[in-house]
Amino acid sequence: MSTHSERLPRWFMPPPARTAAFSSARRPGVVLRVSQIRAWPWADACFRKLDPDVQIRWPVAEGAAVAAGTRVCEIVGQSRALLTGERTALNFLGHLSGIATLTARYVAAVAGTNARIIDTRKTTPGLRALEKFAVRCGGGVNHRFGLFDAVLIKDNHIVAAGGVGAALERARAHAGHMVKVEIEVTNLDEVDEALQLDPDALLLDNMDLSALRAAVKEVAGRVITEASGGVSLDSVRAIAETGVNLISVGALTHSAPVLDIGLDFEPPAKRQHADA
Amino acid sequence: MSTHSERLPRWFMPPPARTAAFSSARRPGVVLRVSQIRAWPWADACFRKLDPDVQIRWPVAEGAAVAAGTRVCEIVGQSRALLTGERTALNFLGHLSGIATLTARYVAAVAGTNARIIDTRKTTPGLRALEKFAVRCGGGVNHRFGLFDAVLIKDNHIVAAGGVGAALERARAHAGHMVKVEIEVTNLDEVDEALQLDPDALLLDNMDLSALRAAVKEVAGRVITEASGGVSLDSVRAIAETGVNLISVGALTHSAPVLDIGLDFEPPAKRQHADA
Amino acid sequence: MSTHSERLPRWFMPPPARTAAFSSARRPGVVLRVSQIRAWPWADACFRKLDPDVQIRWPVAEGAAVAAGTRVCEIVGQSRALLTGERTALNFLGHLSGIATLTARYVAAVAGTNARIIDTRKTTPGLRALEKFAVRCGGGVNHRFGLFDAVLIKDNHIVAAGGVGAALERARAHAGHMVKVEIEVTNLDEVDEALQLDPDALLLDNMDLSALRAAVKEVAGRVITEASGGVSLDSVRAIAETGVNLISVGALTHSAPVLDIGLDFEPPAKRQHADA
Amino acid sequence: MSTHSERLPRWFMPPPARTAAFSSARRPGVVLRVSQIRAWPWADACFRKLDPDVQIRWPVAEGAAVAAGTRVCEIVGQSRALLTGERTALNFLGHLSGIATLTARYVAAVAGTNARIIDTRKTTPGLRALEKFAVRCGGGVNHRFGLFDAVLIKDNHIVAAGGVGAALERARAHAGHMVKVEIEVTNLDEVDEALQLDPDALLLDNMDLSALRAAVKEVAGRVITEASGGVSLDSVRAIAETGVNLISVGALTHSAPVLDIGLDFEPPAKRQHADA
Amino acid sequence: MSTHSERLPRWFMPPPARTAAFSSARRPGVVLRVSQIRAWPWADACFRKLDPDVQIRWPVAEGAAVAAGTRVCEIVGQSRALLTGERTALNFLGHLSGIATLTARYVAAVAGTNARIIDTRKTTPGLRALEKFAVRCGGGVNHRFGLFDAVLIKDNHIVAAGGVGAALERARAHAGHMVKVEIEVTNLDEVDEALQLDPDALLLDNMDLSALRAAVKEVAGRVITEASGGVSLDSVRAIAETGVNLISVGALTHSAPVLDIGLDFEPPAKRQHADA
Amino acid sequence: MSTHSERLPRWFMPPPARTAAFSSARRPGVVLRVSQIRAWPWADACFRKLDPDVQIRWPVAEGAAVAAGTRVCEIVGQSRALLTGERTALNFLGHLSGIATLTARYVAAVAGTNARIIDTRKTTPGLRALEKFAVRCGGGVNHRFGLFDAVLIKDNHIVAAGGVGAALERARAHAGHMVKVEIEVTNLDEVDEALQLDPDALLLDNMDLSALRAAVKEVAGRVITEASGGVSLDSVRAIAETGVNLISVGALTHSAPVLDIGLDFEPPAKRQHADA
Repeated sequence: MSTHSERLPRWFMPPPARTAAFSSARRPGVVLRVSQIRAWPWADACFRKLDPDVQIRWPVAEGAAVAAGTRVCEIVGQSRALLTGERTALNFLGHLSGIATLTARYVAAVAGTNARIIDTRKTTPGLRALEKFAVRCGGGVNHRFGLFDAVLIKDNHIVAAGGVGAALERARAHAGHMVKVEIEVTNLDEVDEALQLDPDALLLDNMDLSALRAAVKEVAGRVITEASGGVSLDSVRAIAETGVNLISVGALTHSAPVLDIGLDFEPPAKRQHADA
Repeated sequence: MSTHSERLPRWFMPPPARTAAFSSARRPGVVLRVSQIRAWPWADACFRKLDPDVQIRWPVAEGAAVAAGTRVCEIVGQSRALLTGERTALNFLGHLSGIATLTARYVAAVAGTNARIIDTRKTTPGLRALEKFAVRCGGGVNHRFGLFDAVLIKDNHIVAAGGVGAALERARAHAGHMVKVEIEVTNLDEVDEALQLDPDALLLDNMDLSALRAAVKEVAGRVITEASGGVSLDSVRAIAETGVNLISVGALTHSAPVLDIGLDFEPPAKRQHADA
Repeated sequence: MSTHSERLPRWFMPPPARTAAFSSARRPGVVLRVSQIRAWPWADACFRKLDPDVQIRWPVAEGAAVAAGTRVCEIVGQSRALLTGERTALNFLGHLSGIATLTARYVAAVAGTNARIIDTRKTTPGLRALEKFAVRCGGGVNHRFGLFDAVLIKDNHIVAAGGVGAALERARAHAGHMVKVEIEVTNLDEVDEALQLDPDALLLDNMDLSALRAAVKEVAGRVITEASGGVSLDSVRAIAETGVNLISVGALTHSAPVLDIGLDFEPPAKRQHADA
Repeated sequence: MSTHSERLPRWFMPPPARTAAFSSARRPGVVLRVSQIRAWPWADACFRKLDPDVQIRWPVAEGAAVAAGTRVCEIVGQSRALLTGERTALNFLGHLSGIATLTARYVAAVAGTNARIIDTRKTTPGLRALEKFAVRCGGGVNHRFGLFDAVLIKDNHIVAAGGVGAALERARAHAGHMVKVEIEVTNLDEVDEALQLDPDALLLDNMDLSALRAAVKEVAGRVITEASGGVSLDSVRAIAETGVNLISVGALTHSAPVLDIGLDFEPPAKRQHADA
Repeated sequence: MSTHSERLPRWFMPPPARTAAFSSARRPGVVLRVSQIRAWPWADACFRKLDPDVQIRWPVAEGAAVAAGTRVCEIVGQSRALLTGERTALNFLGHLSGIATLTARYVAAVAGTNARIIDTRKTTPGLRALEKFAVRCGGGVNHRFGLFDAVLIKDNHIVAAGGVGAALERARAHAGHMVKVEIEVTNLDEVDEALQLDPDALLLDNMDLSALRAAVKEVAGRVITEASGGVSLDSVRAIAETGVNLISVGALTHSAPVLDIGLDFEPPAKRQHADA
Repeated sequence: MSTHSERLPRWFMPPPARTAAFSSARRPGVVLRVSQIRAWPWADACFRKLDPDVQIRWPVAEGAAVAAGTRVCEIVGQSRALLTGERTALNFLGHLSGIATLTARYVAAVAGTNARIIDTRKTTPGLRALEKFAVRCGGGVNHRFGLFDAVLIKDNHIVAAGGVGAALERARAHAGHMVKVEIEVTNLDEVDEALQLDPDALLLDNMDLSALRAAVKEVAGRVITEASGGVSLDSVRAIAETGVNLISVGALTHSAPVLDIGLDFEPPAKRQHADA
């Protein structure tokens, strides 16, 4: 936070003035799973950097669902620190909770199947680590973090290398023994071709339900299967029921709407009442 | 981009190998206004940092609408630079174009009225300047950038200062002569109270259509009026028709879905054909 | 502070050795207004980073005037931390107090008039936020912080845009509703021309006293008036008495001499005496 | 330069619009020595970062004196790059040229004596390397850069170590063989005491002219002598004539007034004329 | 490179003066494999940052062995840029080439066996990515980069989790589908226990040759085997001949002696001769 | 430490779980001098950043020698903080202790002579300040830190300047009065030539023992003498006995093998026993 940002609150009131405030979810019916609350240390830091003595309490237990109106955070601190840090804290909290909330909805949609919901590298610039953390908080599992921790041979790699076999050969020759290799395929012929190459996983891209079912049957558990492309909350359960192991959803990190959480100062009167 | 990220492409093919690729909008019917294209220098940089000799051309003219399938960018460069920079470039492009696209839809919805669409400080941490730039590209106008460039007296400030009059007095005493002051009000009584204080603008927060109309009539052009709260693509035109000067929409920057843009390597065969 | 800088003090004496020291203003007759003392947290940080247990006390009350020889700060801490941090702390303290002191002299010179002393963007590279803070501590008011928080149409903009009207039109079309616009003028004709354009403020640049008086009369309170150019401690009161609202002084931040403040270690003997 | 700063000029005019401008010294009689011009690469960078194709020419030869009104720089580039970079460039140029100018005046004042003008560590936070460079451009010589490149045993060190002998012994035991040691003394007795310790240099602090003469006679060329304290343009020549080797002047870097240099856009008419 | 570092060369000679220099390996018999030469871009950058027009040529082909005295690099550029950048460039070059050279010796020692030489996380703080790159240049293969790209369950993890089974269960439950798991074992009983858990690889730590042979026989190709502990150039071939797949050597990155490479300016006479 | 690095330990066990661990030197007979222990604050920081409440105790007194197996550090803290920080802490500790240990061996080898062991600028990129600190901990003395704090005229400078006299003249003219000058010579003729120029020190480069003896005799204490080139633990004492003042050893910082120090978690049983 730049020194500029503090211009208003620095003079708005003398630093000793302290206020109590609480933060609550505004949107009715939106469930905030407990694990999302792990996103809160960032919110804490926004205030603590401005007022080291701020007191912050998160009344909601880890793992609980949160109804609209639930008070999720209680803060007492210097008024101007609260006014200065409020928006930044809520921007972190809302963005990451939004991702966790959307992930939780996808996870709920496939409950009872064997499929796990995973993320992609389609993240917001600068926030990948936090967003992938939010996905885990929402019950999802992380795909690789970058180009460095796993090899995923996609269409462009195959074009560049001159064929899937050539691409895989290069990957095998250079990657370390701890690096897994996944190959993207788009139809059953490519599934068969890829299985010859003995990969660790297959990415079944943009295949319809019957093709997915056929692919799962063909693979027969020999490698991990991941479905991707055109996944929505409406379609995800049917995809899960084809028997794939994983369903990757780019929208988790690139299109999750914010979870609307606000911060309200408590009027002194009310506070006195509470003290009584 | 850390050195880690480059692990795959560094060995995947020798640096001299060059590929042609093109980037296109994938989603049918989504309009990409020309001005959004100003978001592209960031995309350029993702590739140029890895291959200083990369050639990038944006065939779409500034200000044009883009149908699904339109080729928006043509790149020729080292294959491994393209494979390495692809995802980061598309993440920037998709996120910022998504904001510009959503803004353009709001702007189109109020066409013909006097209302302008403006953004808020509800931005993604780390990306405020870029996101506010994307709003301008989409035809919107920026509200203040932070706490430093304008004074907006909101509910929490009024609670902290002990009243709207006290809050405004403090602001007037300390802010420079170039800083405007806006006051948040939620009903007609507060409109009247605020007008006594001679602010530069009024933020009419969460007022219904009839209340907005009454407020606009009461203000009678003496100060700028801004409506906020509960604005959606469905409701924005009716709000605009109440006669307010500005409508602020947090969703522009906190909940815009990504614009789906992909990058495809051109198979050599096709390229030979193109060369013929 | 780089690790290099600490080479001397690290071995000069064992870390447990502690010393008491005090800092005092050296220059007779120079008044250090209380508000300047807010510059001191930076001084504190220079020592605290090297010795987290350092004790620092500022005996001078906020807002008091300081005569030469006044002890403004008392420190007890590790000798080598004090020897290492001393020069950096004094450089901050002297530079910012120098700006506050000069500002206070200008503010005193216009006491009783309606004019306020304001700063400019002619600041030392890297220190604008701190220097503008020092101006406020000295009783001045800040003009805009940069190109982003207000529009000031100056001679070069007018040349570039092809006329003051064209420049203002562009500014109005693109700036947000919270951004004020000021126009620079140099004679009465330009004052009249600018007033037609309905700006928020006029910058009366390098106009003599009679021209300033005429301009103030012409403006008649419709917009804010700011005088600039050739302002010195000798001329500032006469300028203020023309009735302008603001007088901007570049020298506050680009040419203020340092306030000479030194740090003296207390000899052990003296300390024992003090303890007795 | 933050992206915020560019808000005005980005829309003020389309990027292709180019302007010619020139920069000139505004203050009559102020001499800008050629060597100061080496300060200009920073000025160049302010524009080049915003417009890589900007053309900058410095018509004044290195080492020349510059009268008021002299055109020192000619620039042709994108209008908005010039409007955006102007103030930052001039702030660098004015501050560093101010230091070089003041240094040159001190150097001129001691011309013909054996004394050299040197700087101190009393520099502006963040700018020490640039400011010491400006001192060299003005004809001065640098004292040490920090605590790491030379040992200067001052009053506070002597108090902390319990005596000048103890302080020197510690320094000798730990410093490398390439590090020189200078001792601060304030009267003839201390000169004699210090000479026993065989230092590389003596800092004669706040001694009057007769004491300085006596000290120089006593030292008899065995070690380097440096005078400091209360040095002004009025007193510096008399100090130099005492025969000291060096005179250190804190004001060079902590209190030099800016050199007033402005930037003026050339009106198109004038430019056409120039082209004819 | 800080501005301080450049103090000497900046004045040592005027910038136009250019010199030719060459860099050569000083130590006889040390083989510098071609792939190590990829370490050179860093060396290039040390000079290019100081003189953008420097010309650098690496006469040794990629993959060649280098005898003592071989000229590996030829540079022509500003003398002071070469004098300033020389040591930093050689420090990079010597350190990374030292690692590549030691790796190449280990790789040569196991030539003809199935074992590959791999590195560890025992790297120099700040240089892991470069050092692991040097290992690859020397013919080795990288183990994981950090805690994030593979799971290696070691003794301390087993103590902390309360048993190898509990540790593996936690890893399986949380790690993504692309993350492999390796278990550290120290004797045949632990090999059997670990194989029950179906890991991707076994780390056979500090086992003697007969134990290694027995373990390899027991594993029978079901998982990857890695030997570690007490590996030296003397012992590595015998270890390789036990049939393990991988041998990890911490010394590659934590104890490789520098490869002695120097830089010599070419005397003008010699240069004239060369030109003739 | 990036957020990526923490992926494993974050979920591996719940944060409240705490473990006791100890760190011990693994290599028999390697002496760890007490002063090296000053390297440990960095090790502390690796853990404290992850667990602010970690308790760290260093049982070995400053200056003691450490036999293989000595427990040098005891830690109690969150298990996952210990698992996460372990490798980074040990990498710092092993690298810096390795340098201190090697320095101590050189210092011991010349015990009783007048020679002091000094380092060079042949350090690991990024770690110079720490490595030179480790040399001091091992009983050595630092040569200059960079090009900025002393002038060393070497072969390449002489070639570039066109002779040792020309090089020295330039140095004298521009360097400050606190900067010493050393000249590199390689035979007795050059010693004589250099002595004419009255330097502060001579670097006797790559001269054999009889030449060194002759040079020391020739110099006769007038300037400091430093031997360099081909120094090993076998040859250093004979070099010291020639009477030179200093022996510089590049290997101290560029080729010191790591000191093998490990970290072991204490099994709960053992801990209970300890508690009993």
